[in-house]
Amino acid sequence: MTAISRFSIPELDDVPEDIRDRILKVQEKSGFVPNVFLALARRPDEFRAFFAYHDALMEKEGGLTKAEREMIVVATSGANNCQYCVVAHGAILRIRAKNPLVADQVAINYRKADITPRQRAMLDFAMKVSLRQAEIGDEDFAALRAQGFSDEDAWDIGAIAAFFGLSNRMANLMNLRPNDEFYLLGRVPR
Amino acid sequence: MTAISRFSIPELDDVPEDIRDRILKVQEKSGFVPNVFLALARRPDEFRAFFAYHDALMEKEGGLTKAEREMIVVATSGANNCQYCVVAHGAILRIRAKNPLVADQVAINYRKADITPRQRAMLDFAMKVSLRQAEIGDEDFAALRAQGFSDEDAWDIGAIAAFFGLSNRMANLMNLRPNDEFYLLGRVPR
Amino acid sequence: MTAISRFSIPELDDVPEDIRDRILKVQEKSGFVPNVFLALARRPDEFRAFFAYHDALMEKEGGLTKAEREMIVVATSGANNCQYCVVAHGAILRIRAKNPLVADQVAINYRKADITPRQRAMLDFAMKVSLRQAEIGDEDFAALRAQGFSDEDAWDIGAIAAFFGLSNRMANLMNLRPNDEFYLLGRVPR
Amino acid sequence: MTAISRFSIPELDDVPEDIRDRILKVQEKSGFVPNVFLALARRPDEFRAFFAYHDALMEKEGGLTKAEREMIVVATSGANNCQYCVVAHGAILRIRAKNPLVADQVAINYRKADITPRQRAMLDFAMKVSLRQAEIGDEDFAALRAQGFSDEDAWDIGAIAAFFGLSNRMANLMNLRPNDEFYLLGRVPR
Amino acid sequence: MTAISRFSIPELDDVPEDIRDRILKVQEKSGFVPNVFLALARRPDEFRAFFAYHDALMEKEGGLTKAEREMIVVATSGANNCQYCVVAHGAILRIRAKNPLVADQVAINYRKADITPRQRAMLDFAMKVSLRQAEIGDEDFAALRAQGFSDEDAWDIGAIAAFFGLSNRMANLMNLRPNDEFYLLGRVPR
Amino acid sequence: MTAISRFSIPELDDVPEDIRDRILKVQEKSGFVPNVFLALARRPDEFRAFFAYHDALMEKEGGLTKAEREMIVVATSGANNCQYCVVAHGAILRIRAKNPLVADQVAINYRKADITPRQRAMLDFAMKVSLRQAEIGDEDFAALRAQGFSDEDAWDIGAIAAFFGLSNRMANLMNLRPNDEFYLLGRVPR
Repeated sequence: MTAISRFSIPELDDVPEDIRDRILKVQEKSGFVPNVFLALARRPDEFRAFFAYHDALMEKEGGLTKAEREMIVVATSGANNCQYCVVAHGAILRIRAKNPLVADQVAINYRKADITPRQRAMLDFAMKVSLRQAEIGDEDFAALRAQGFSDEDAWDIGAIAAFFGLSNRMANLMNLRPNDEFYLLGRVPR
Repeated sequence: MTAISRFSIPELDDVPEDIRDRILKVQEKSGFVPNVFLALARRPDEFRAFFAYHDALMEKEGGLTKAEREMIVVATSGANNCQYCVVAHGAILRIRAKNPLVADQVAINYRKADITPRQRAMLDFAMKVSLRQAEIGDEDFAALRAQGFSDEDAWDIGAIAAFFGLSNRMANLMNLRPNDEFYLLGRVPR
Repeated sequence: MTAISRFSIPELDDVPEDIRDRILKVQEKSGFVPNVFLALARRPDEFRAFFAYHDALMEKEGGLTKAEREMIVVATSGANNCQYCVVAHGAILRIRAKNPLVADQVAINYRKADITPRQRAMLDFAMKVSLRQAEIGDEDFAALRAQGFSDEDAWDIGAIAAFFGLSNRMANLMNLRPNDEFYLLGRVPR
Repeated sequence: MTAISRFSIPELDDVPEDIRDRILKVQEKSGFVPNVFLALARRPDEFRAFFAYHDALMEKEGGLTKAEREMIVVATSGANNCQYCVVAHGAILRIRAKNPLVADQVAINYRKADITPRQRAMLDFAMKVSLRQAEIGDEDFAALRAQGFSDEDAWDIGAIAAFFGLSNRMANLMNLRPNDEFYLLGRVPR
Repeated sequence: MTAISRFSIPELDDVPEDIRDRILKVQEKSGFVPNVFLALARRPDEFRAFFAYHDALMEKEGGLTKAEREMIVVATSGANNCQYCVVAHGAILRIRAKNPLVADQVAINYRKADITPRQRAMLDFAMKVSLRQAEIGDEDFAALRAQGFSDEDAWDIGAIAAFFGLSNRMANLMNLRPNDEFYLLGRVPR
Repeated sequence: MTAISRFSIPELDDVPEDIRDRILKVQEKSGFVPNVFLALARRPDEFRAFFAYHDALMEKEGGLTKAEREMIVVATSGANNCQYCVVAHGAILRIRAKNPLVADQVAINYRKADITPRQRAMLDFAMKVSLRQAEIGDEDFAALRAQGFSDEDAWDIGAIAAFFGLSNRMANLMNLRPNDEFYLLGRVPR
């Protein structure tokens, strides 16, 4: 079987308790352990910081829905050619948006996806942060405001794109393999 | 409902007989009419040339399996951000390769896909034709030969990448929408 | 002498009759056989599809003159660094436009060529299809309409750019050599 | 005076105690508060995750010296055109390397800097993670091993490049202004 | 008639004597005044420095023939999309190389031109200087040496590419128009 | 000690008198000889043309201040990753602008520097000439005029960017090392 990661994966018994707890909790909720948890567990401090950052951006309140946050993740990960993140967060996006098509659309070319003009502006901003960060300027914030986004929303969009830029790079570094389960999740109405 | 194409779609009754026949045949075989047939039918001469070219490259004998040909299509279409071709040919690839995972892997980053070194070399060559055609040289043919490909195979690989470069551009021009049916095809073992 | 192509060239006697007929006809008309006919003849089905597609786009009626169609070919081929297509279609453009200068101008930098604003918009659109297809949007069609182009013209422009993207890639794959005759054609008033 | 950030800066009194403590501690140690602490403090959870991640990568033991870690930060931030990070971490690099020249050299073009071949390989790897993550492969790990780096070192190098890719994007998003103090630090022997 | 330049052209009587002399001399030799002389004459100091630099690189002795120096100019100017320089120096290259084809070949894609492996290495080096200067390294000098070039030749190649990078930018800034005479020069055996 | 240049440096006694005079004069004025003088002196004709061109652009009267001219040099050299030019002209910019911060800001990301909107437009134009010369058009001149620049100023801006594009390429070709003195110049108020 193909390895989960280019780096070694620790035994669950050898992992600090707080990390093991989080892994068992996600397993209980999802029915399997997403490989990113296993792959990062070998570096407990980085594991903790990674998921704390993730939760701070993805679990918070604000002007973006949870589905929209995942949409940013999928578009960013597509632009960064990150297999793990497109497949795993594509599944989450399908579930959160209750839409079996939108994840593939956004991953390949968000400009052609079935999304609102507001979401299009959100992804334009996220792509600028991902691909042309040096050129971010007032006009980009103005384009968001024209679609009703606040500056706090702009931070959220930019920070999610930036954080998953980190995540994409780590996954590409590790050759992180998406769990087989993700591919089908959210595609078939239950 | 979102339109199939930015351009008008002809009534099936208004389409020349040979084109209508092809459309009905594909409908019978697949259970639905892939939108590319409807979208191109408004230009009968281009329709005929397009599918004649397609068949000449995809239905021929040679050193590449049918699944490998589709693999080239999916990788090329991913690199060209063509939603229609990734979704539609992703489905065909899953079916031909009897593998529910490989299409998404190849579309996002073929370097991380579950493919053989020979297929990796095949896709490296296809990407060079797609993205850096001006630099194609003897060393690229040598890399294929080192994996057992003949020069006829090299033509096949390059021609498929070139033809779907055309196809991707037409789909992006038309805003061609993939049929909903494609997304799930080949994902669930029957 | 330098080879016409990296691949073998068939004897004219070994070529299917319809293909031989087309080759002899072009020879009669032009006084020589452009190398693309010889180089593609080794794959009869692809030869037929290629020229059927070519004729469907280049010989049709519509809002673009024949010279303008060639202008798109030359600009596209310049951007794709395709020696055969720039040299061969540069000659055709000079003849069709009755202008000995415009082909070199368009091949090197169409923004500096002696063309009308309408033709400039046409080539801007063709370059977007050639080089940034993923970003094609309503604003590109609007820019064409502002210059009096219909949406059928937009299809023509985009399809010519897409088809010669295929042609350029095949020529770069084959190392297709332009016939010496093309270089001087249309440069000297007869 | 030019603002520190495009976003508001909280009063120190309004900041959670653990964050205020960290800010006061860095002020005591450095003699001033680097603006990144003030700019991130408005989002306490992200502040905590950011600095936890930072410390996990920059304060850990391992095959890289502290100066080498800063070297990766400066090269990454130069490639990403991040003014705050080049100026601030340039100062730290000068101090840690006890070298007043190396930070400017690495920021502008690390290939021309006064560094060892080992450090050159380290920065080549960091640049691949920063700029061409999709292509990371076995050959990149092999190049590091040839210079004596372990795979744990490879993780460190890649993770630092990835984390500062996030940091650069946040700074460019915020228009984060480097403190004036940084520009001169480490340039004059005390 | 289309203007020679976006900027004004001085009357020959208003030009300093040394510049007028040079202009009259080139007119006597060529039968016409290449537009670059007229366009730069409005800034006498820059005119003098430009042509002094030009002559120092193009008229000197050394390991490169005059035709090879022009070959570098044409390849550089093609890569930089400079219409004036490709057309004007294309003519000079045809004459110096006594070859009516090589200029168009080199301008469009030097990798496919009828040149020697030594000349191919020369143009690879020139392209690196033109397009990826930051990455120039020992391996580029070694590739030249492997083809028999000295390091003085390397300077010549690089300096010609660098100087015509300046020249290309000035021509693109001015919208400098090539004289009609250049297009046909050297194409027809006398 | 690291070499000044990849190429040999002549003895001052072996250098033509006019060049030696210029070198001694700059030494007297600055207290040291900037390495570019020594590195170019081995090719006297190119030395003379280079500095004549430099002086024609940098010492002339016109709508740009001397500090603004250096600002263009630093931004151009940053975009071209030229270590010598960023370090040496960064020092001159600090002195001429009487501002110890602006050089580092402009070198890393001029869009975030403490400069006026007029200077921002000036650098936008310089970057277009440096990085996208083929696309320079009327709209770029209009943007300068909107900030009060004349067309002569536009020439100055473009010519400085073009000349330092040459200079950057020569420095990268030579591996030209900045003198240690430059790094600190203009950073500390005297």
